[in-house]
Amino acid sequence: MPRIVDHARRREEIARLAVQVIQQEGSESATVRRIAQAGGFSIGVLTHYFKDKDELVAFAFQWLARQSFADLEAAVAAVPPGLARLRTALEFMVPAAGTRSFIAVWISLWGGAMRNPALARVHRAFYARWRRYLRRFLGEAARRGELAVPRSTPDAIDLLVAGIDGLWIGATFEPLRYSTRRRRWLIGRLLAAVVGPTAGRGGA
Amino acid sequence: MPRIVDHARRREEIARLAVQVIQQEGSESATVRRIAQAGGFSIGVLTHYFKDKDELVAFAFQWLARQSFADLEAAVAAVPPGLARLRTALEFMVPAAGTRSFIAVWISLWGGAMRNPALARVHRAFYARWRRYLRRFLGEAARRGELAVPRSTPDAIDLLVAGIDGLWIGATFEPLRYSTRRRRWLIGRLLAAVVGPTAGRGGA
Repeated sequence: MPRIVDHARRREEIARLAVQVIQQEGSESATVRRIAQAGGFSIGVLTHYFKDKDELVAFAFQWLARQSFADLEAAVAAVPPGLARLRTALEFMVPAAGTRSFIAVWISLWGGAMRNPALARVHRAFYARWRRYLRRFLGEAARRGELAVPRSTPDAIDLLVAGIDGLWIGATFEPLRYSTRRRRWLIGRLLAAVVGPTAGRGGA
Repeated sequence: MPRIVDHARRREEIARLAVQVIQQEGSESATVRRIAQAGGFSIGVLTHYFKDKDELVAFAFQWLARQSFADLEAAVAAVPPGLARLRTALEFMVPAAGTRSFIAVWISLWGGAMRNPALARVHRAFYARWRRYLRRFLGEAARRGELAVPRSTPDAIDLLVAGIDGLWIGATFEPLRYSTRRRRWLIGRLLAAVVGPTAGRGGA
C-alpha cells in the first residue's frame, strides 16, 4: 500500500520540519505558512496532511515524544534494573538546557492545550506513559530491596513526576543555577525524599 | 510629576489589557496589533509605551507577579508563622486550573525566554523572590520546632520549588486528576518528604 506508506512518511517529514521551525524560531513564528515555506511546499500540501496548526503541533509533539521514549528505553536498557535504572530514567528527563530540547514544542503544545481539548489529551497521554515507566522502574527497584517501598506508589509517582518537571523547567530557564552536577544531586535528594532513606542518601 | 504618573498608569493599563488578551485568546494571538485593538488604541500608542511584544510580555508578567506576591502576602498573613504558613504558601502556588491563572502569560514568557535573555531574567527574578519567601517560611517553621531542620536549606527550597512547579503544571493540564483534595494531599507528602517526618505525616 504505497499510498498509505507515503502518507505516513510525508506526515512524519512535515512533523520533523515543524519541530525544527518551532525550535529555531519559537512557537509563535511556526505558522502553517512558515512551515510550508521552510520545507518548500505550498500551503495546500501542508493542509492536505494537517487540518490546522493545532493538529500539526499535536502530531509533531507525539512524534517527538515517541522518539524520546525510544531514547529513554535505550538509556535504561544500558543499566541493570533497580535503583540505577530508576535514576537513569529520572536523569534522562532533565537534560541540560538546549540538548534534546522538547521545551519549544512543549510550550507550543501547552499554549494550545489551554483552549483545545485535543492538545490537552496529547499532554495527558505523554504523562500517562511516563508514569507507567516510573511504576515499572519503582517496582523493579523495590523487588530488589534497593529502596524503601513507598507507602503509596501513586503518591511516589506523582511526586517524582512533579519534581522532575520542576527541575526540567529550572534547568531550561536557569541553566547556570542547575548545572549537571546540581541536577544530579537534586534528583538524588528527590529520590531519597520520596522513596525513603534506603535510596540515594549517599547518592549524588 | 503628572506626566510620569500618567506614563506609569498607562503602562499598567496596557499590561492589564495584554494579560486579558493573552488569557482569553492565547499568547500567539496576543500581538501588539491585537492588544492595541482590544484597548481601542492605535498601534502607535502602544509602541510609544512598549518597544515590542517581548517588552510588553515582560512588563505584563512582572505586573501579574507583583499582584500574585501581594496576594500571597495577604494569604500568609492570615495564618500564624510556622508550618501552617509554609503550607499556605505552597498551596497558594498550586491553584485550581483556571483560577488566578498565570499559565497563559507564563507560557508566553517562556516562549520568549528561549530566545530573549531579558525575558529569561524576568523568569529568574520571579523564582529568586519565590525562593526568598520559602526560605523565610522554612526558617519560621524550623525555629518553632515544627519541622525537621533540613540537612540543606538550599536543597529543600529547590525541591519544594520544583515539586510545586510540577504540581502546578499537572493541575493546569490535568485538572480532573489533580483535584483540590489531591493537590493538598500531595503538597503535604512533598513537605513531609523534603523537610522530614515531623511535617505533614498526618498532614492532608
